[in-house]
Amino acid sequence: MIKVGIVGCSGYTAIEAIKWLLRHPDAEIVAATSRKADGSTVCAMHPTLTGRLNLVVEDLAPEQVAARCDVVFCCLPHAASAPIVSQILDSGSKVIDLSADYRLSTCALYEKWYGSQHPDPGRVGQAPYGLPELFAEQIRGANLVANPGCYPTSAILPLAPLVKEGLIETTGIVVDAKSGASGAGRTPKLGTLYSEINESFSAYGVGTHRHQPEIIDIIGRYAGSEPQLIFTPHLVPMDRGILSTIYARPQAGATANQIRECLCSYYQNSPFVRVVSHLPATKHVAGTNYCDLTVRDSGGWIILLSALDNLVKGASGAAVQCMNILFDHDETTGLGA
Amino acid sequence: MIKVGIVGCSGYTAIEAIKWLLRHPDAEIVAATSRKADGSTVCAMHPTLTGRLNLVVEDLAPEQVAARCDVVFCCLPHAASAPIVSQILDSGSKVIDLSADYRLSTCALYEKWYGSQHPDPGRVGQAPYGLPELFAEQIRGANLVANPGCYPTSAILPLAPLVKEGLIETTGIVVDAKSGASGAGRTPKLGTLYSEINESFSAYGVGTHRHQPEIIDIIGRYAGSEPQLIFTPHLVPMDRGILSTIYARPQAGATANQIRECLCSYYQNSPFVRVVSHLPATKHVAGTNYCDLTVRDSGGWIILLSALDNLVKGASGAAVQCMNILFDHDETTGLGA
Amino acid sequence: MIKVGIVGCSGYTAIEAIKWLLRHPDAEIVAATSRKADGSTVCAMHPTLTGRLNLVVEDLAPEQVAARCDVVFCCLPHAASAPIVSQILDSGSKVIDLSADYRLSTCALYEKWYGSQHPDPGRVGQAPYGLPELFAEQIRGANLVANPGCYPTSAILPLAPLVKEGLIETTGIVVDAKSGASGAGRTPKLGTLYSEINESFSAYGVGTHRHQPEIIDIIGRYAGSEPQLIFTPHLVPMDRGILSTIYARPQAGATANQIRECLCSYYQNSPFVRVVSHLPATKHVAGTNYCDLTVRDSGGWIILLSALDNLVKGASGAAVQCMNILFDHDETTGLGA
Amino acid sequence: MIKVGIVGCSGYTAIEAIKWLLRHPDAEIVAATSRKADGSTVCAMHPTLTGRLNLVVEDLAPEQVAARCDVVFCCLPHAASAPIVSQILDSGSKVIDLSADYRLSTCALYEKWYGSQHPDPGRVGQAPYGLPELFAEQIRGANLVANPGCYPTSAILPLAPLVKEGLIETTGIVVDAKSGASGAGRTPKLGTLYSEINESFSAYGVGTHRHQPEIIDIIGRYAGSEPQLIFTPHLVPMDRGILSTIYARPQAGATANQIRECLCSYYQNSPFVRVVSHLPATKHVAGTNYCDLTVRDSGGWIILLSALDNLVKGASGAAVQCMNILFDHDETTGLGA
Repeated sequence: MIKVGIVGCSGYTAIEAIKWLLRHPDAEIVAATSRKADGSTVCAMHPTLTGRLNLVVEDLAPEQVAARCDVVFCCLPHAASAPIVSQILDSGSKVIDLSADYRLSTCALYEKWYGSQHPDPGRVGQAPYGLPELFAEQIRGANLVANPGCYPTSAILPLAPLVKEGLIETTGIVVDAKSGASGAGRTPKLGTLYSEINESFSAYGVGTHRHQPEIIDIIGRYAGSEPQLIFTPHLVPMDRGILSTIYARPQAGATANQIRECLCSYYQNSPFVRVVSHLPATKHVAGTNYCDLTVRDSGGWIILLSALDNLVKGASGAAVQCMNILFDHDETTGLGA
Repeated sequence: MIKVGIVGCSGYTAIEAIKWLLRHPDAEIVAATSRKADGSTVCAMHPTLTGRLNLVVEDLAPEQVAARCDVVFCCLPHAASAPIVSQILDSGSKVIDLSADYRLSTCALYEKWYGSQHPDPGRVGQAPYGLPELFAEQIRGANLVANPGCYPTSAILPLAPLVKEGLIETTGIVVDAKSGASGAGRTPKLGTLYSEINESFSAYGVGTHRHQPEIIDIIGRYAGSEPQLIFTPHLVPMDRGILSTIYARPQAGATANQIRECLCSYYQNSPFVRVVSHLPATKHVAGTNYCDLTVRDSGGWIILLSALDNLVKGASGAAVQCMNILFDHDETTGLGA
Repeated sequence: MIKVGIVGCSGYTAIEAIKWLLRHPDAEIVAATSRKADGSTVCAMHPTLTGRLNLVVEDLAPEQVAARCDVVFCCLPHAASAPIVSQILDSGSKVIDLSADYRLSTCALYEKWYGSQHPDPGRVGQAPYGLPELFAEQIRGANLVANPGCYPTSAILPLAPLVKEGLIETTGIVVDAKSGASGAGRTPKLGTLYSEINESFSAYGVGTHRHQPEIIDIIGRYAGSEPQLIFTPHLVPMDRGILSTIYARPQAGATANQIRECLCSYYQNSPFVRVVSHLPATKHVAGTNYCDLTVRDSGGWIILLSALDNLVKGASGAAVQCMNILFDHDETTGLGA
Repeated sequence: MIKVGIVGCSGYTAIEAIKWLLRHPDAEIVAATSRKADGSTVCAMHPTLTGRLNLVVEDLAPEQVAARCDVVFCCLPHAASAPIVSQILDSGSKVIDLSADYRLSTCALYEKWYGSQHPDPGRVGQAPYGLPELFAEQIRGANLVANPGCYPTSAILPLAPLVKEGLIETTGIVVDAKSGASGAGRTPKLGTLYSEINESFSAYGVGTHRHQPEIIDIIGRYAGSEPQLIFTPHLVPMDRGILSTIYARPQAGATANQIRECLCSYYQNSPFVRVVSHLPATKHVAGTNYCDLTVRDSGGWIILLSALDNLVKGASGAAVQCMNILFDHDETTGLGA
């Protein structure tokens, strides 16, 4: 039984992680922490868990969490996460960090995009990126896994193999991505009120979103060739789901069919990537750990479409998948849809 | 041209009032105030108004607002409203108060349900309740109008005539009401985040909502007989609209047809009340100042259904309707759907 | 391994049943039928199942289905279901019927509310009502289970114990119920188009909905005393979930606390009924087999609130729960949230 | 008073046209036709109009409609529209055709994309495209106006001036567009059911949507240079609104600022185009005839964003705007938001 701790248990990724861990036959949640701890249980914070997890939320120090756990899911915001992760690692537990703190390759990149010095520079560039479809070997022996961003997962899964195989040009790529509102987190803000988001659709962070350098960095790291791409996120009035529509130029006369075959071949042993022939919809993957991919061509472009659930394959399901690898379980354990 | 001020212009009722006033042929918005005023225009706060109202938001004192205006729409929260309203009235402008501060008949009732002393006790019980369908005469010569609550409007319009005419029993009435999320206001709170409300339906304030005494008080005032009723509000995942399903016992053998005729007769000269034969839906009245009513009977009950847009007939449309009466315009001026 | 067939596999209850059965450790789906069968697989009909169930949809005769299966989930519309169910039973398979055909006690009641003669009158009144919380003993040895309606489950679970124990009056009960749109089925109709339902809320079938006699019949059957109640369904712009707000009069001075204790006591061994102290929301139970109940009192009324997912505890989850009982598995097998 | 007829009054564009015409001070609806006419009024078909338009729906021949009207809004599907339009024109009324039948320049283009021979080839290429911001002169004296498609309006308004002025390259343009569900019409289909669209986001018609040739054709006609672009539509779970995110390459070193200035200059006398500096959202323009545009640059791309209400500026509001021009009224008459 893997003993798991949840640090920062009040948000949407935390509750989602808890739900999947409760279904997992070999995991047990032994600690849930929050600065808002007031002696009540996780159920009081998340009524959907009533009767399913009678654990008191605690305001534990990192060492205390580490002492109880084999692995800690760290669900804190970026910059807040690294100092805690660092202490948990030093105290001997493994960590899957759901923040962005350990995803980028260099401190310089982090500082450019996150606007502050990295709190744990020594580990930057050391943690494997928690996308088992691409980095399973590096994840296997790690103590710290940098769990991927939701948008990057939806862009990297279709693009990385194609860049690696030279089937698309690495310049001029456009990632036009659309996400449900749970991606914006559970902290009350004007912009995430129901009456602001409902019945509206808009772009945000055009040219400035932090997932853009993450996508570029990881594809470059995996494929050996850094793509030149832009990323435009949009907010969809729905709870969950990301659909990315990606425009790239074929290389060496590659056709949609060849590209589909490349993806099929790359992911033939990846149980959570489904290369489909129909156009994917976020509803097809909602509540599951799947990422559905398809390919079209038109007007000289290759159009890649990918759909995933931002809280599952885009966050907590991916974290459980990484946990399975860290502890030598089958990748799919507890992740049946 | 009626010179209108909007006090507290950042919320949903304020923006809705502004939109209707912009369409009004005889009204001009001459002041918009907010404590958040920072030198920018109303459009910066509400991008939907871009190019339609180039008015700078100001942090004006009540006397300053009064000096510019014939009438002020006060869109502040309860308890915050009365002190401002009081000073505006003293400075010579009329006021339509969209808060609850002047709706109840007595200070005692206010204190019981709002939990604090009334800030302007001398005017309590003096302001007409701004439901022109029932109180047009009192509104006509008033300086201060207490604009009705959204839920109360949906309950009082169908119930008041029936209580007055003795067609239903005044005890054992159940008002089961459902509202879209804009009724919860524009202040960021966990409970009004998109991801909390979307795809969920729940009751709230069961037995404790402040609109219950308002409904009882006003029906009693109008019909001379205070009903005994309970009110249960629910939150619907949509922007706008209230549907109230009301259960009452017929009196003296009254049938659904007699009750429908009574409503038709009462509201034959009320342009915004439509007594319909089909079951009303909030979508039929969204964006309009209509309240649709119908009647059914079943199992010994009379079932009344009423639908309105909580931001229009339930708030800012009603306020414009009252303004028209205050300034001897046709009730419907500027309120075409 | 229980061999399961799905008859009528194109709708929402069928797809939901399939999803839960895929998670079930001891069930295997061996047949899926539809008159729309065209040689393609279940996945082509339900892309969410891609790669999870490679079963060809067939247009099988009832005997053919029965020959393959230990139990058949019959997901056909009422009136269409009974003739098929009858033949499957005659051919030796057990049946869990998700239609309304075997729920009511008498043919007369069926004919009154469904407007046609019952197609299989001999079995009317014989099948246990598939609410294991109340009828587990009768279900255990049955060949045919009448799976409950979604609204009835939400009303019967809170009401039946209270009627049985004499804690509420059996007259004058009001069930004001609200459901998400998946309850309306997957057949294209004007009324269930996105643009008709979205941003709208309305009542329907006031005094005429077929779930009203079902609720009355089952409570009467269970508690020995037929209640006099009315039922008003409403349509909520969301996919899943039912919340019922139920108004009843306490008997013999019963308080909300006594009623809560009665419910706690009745359901202490019912893993899927959670008697909670907070106000339930459909989101708390979405995607789970739970029904959350709570109690309030106000103005001389007892107010019961119940929330469930209409496709899970209100349909296919309940069916799997019944299947577990039929085959002597733990009631909760495969139903972990 | 302009006498207006509505041919095909059961759908969403028809109801939207009726609402705007009811507000118009100089228009009167004198006929509403439908093949579904059964002697009841427009209100019976659209309960939101109760008490606002007591007109009986008729199944009139084109000549009969023409005899009553100065102008007819033809709200029929493509291919069904042209034969009717042709007869109405021949009978002497003006027509604003909301279908696609007269939008494309040539019969060959129509046949390629609509898959059938054009029913009225003689008028193909003759009708002005009803986008007054670009074609007001041609509209002024016309008898037939081809009202633009909703997506094309959102793409042509930002792109046409830039192509004309040589500020962007005319090749490699990507129009990634997202629309609310009302764009899919009011005919019941599986794909437009609430439970299919809600909580889902997907692309459709990738590379095959008929609005792609319309965009290319009109920009070419206006700017003299046919662009090479691809268009990808997506379905958003909301009622109304289109947001298009458009990627183009700047020409001759054009910057975002220069492009914004070009748009400002082009549209300085266009009351319904707002060039804004913030990122537009569909909610900002919902229920209005505005199209909001903005510009960003990133990674060597110019990113244009445009938002409009698909039923207003994308359909019926534009039709009223054209009607105003046809009858020498101010373009904005009756179109105040």
